[in-house]
Amino acid sequence: MSCPLCDEDGGLVVHREKGLRVVRVLDDANFPAFYRVVWDAHVTEFSDLAAADRHRLIDRVAAVEAALRQALQPTKVNVASLGNMVAHQHWHVIARFDWDSHYPGPIWATPQRTVQPPPAERLALSLTALDERVRQALIASA
Amino acid sequence: MSCPLCDEDGGLVVHREKGLRVVRVLDDANFPAFYRVVWDAHVTEFSDLAAADRHRLIDRVAAVEAALRQALQPTKVNVASLGNMVAHQHWHVIARFDWDSHYPGPIWATPQRTVQPPPAERLALSLTALDERVRQALIASA
Repeated sequence: MSCPLCDEDGGLVVHREKGLRVVRVLDDANFPAFYRVVWDAHVTEFSDLAAADRHRLIDRVAAVEAALRQALQPTKVNVASLGNMVAHQHWHVIARFDWDSHYPGPIWATPQRTVQPPPAERLALSLTALDERVRQALIASA
Repeated sequence: MSCPLCDEDGGLVVHREKGLRVVRVLDDANFPAFYRVVWDAHVTEFSDLAAADRHRLIDRVAAVEAALRQALQPTKVNVASLGNMVAHQHWHVIARFDWDSHYPGPIWATPQRTVQPPPAERLALSLTALDERVRQALIASA
């Protein structure tokens, strides 16, 4: 069976290292500061990974989270590994703001409000600059 | 400000160890096989924790996940640390089934179906027996 995260990157690649990549999610305008840490190999569950791989993967999640906090001062960061639709290990790391469309609900819940101006314009820096901050944080913490 | 996870356990405690606890969530009948790994100290974000604590916490998440997989053969396990409502480090670990109320959506999305008989009756073992499996897995992997 074809797997979207085997066949494609799953977003704009901001970082690659042995065994994993970090992408920015491009298809949800409500959440512009939304990254994914994707394990390159097709592994379904987190507990399928060896402890050293779990630790490295989660350290990359924490590095992305820390970069988002430093760059954007979000209200909260949400982290999740669901995989019901795409059962290939990937971790969502999403900067949340008290003004965002779904806050304080999860991004998958019912929207609470429409946000104008668009969310990307409300961030403290451009997405290109944010990508660079995330990339630098990943390199610095490698 | 009062914090529900400082003031209370946040569910039925199935395991305690230095610095953290594992509880079964009691308030969502749609998802009976739903556990939380709760950091005892009031820490907001995962990246606030030192690396050794992050690793220990996520290893407990993986141990709960592995126990759920072995006991229940779920379609998928969902793991998430959101904290928009309760900004105190806690990780949801939820066994998902292709017959459950929200599958393949996240548990926070719109329900897709009503499940009869009730979900708890469809699990391969009782919740009391499941708690014991989770507890034993946590002890064995400590």
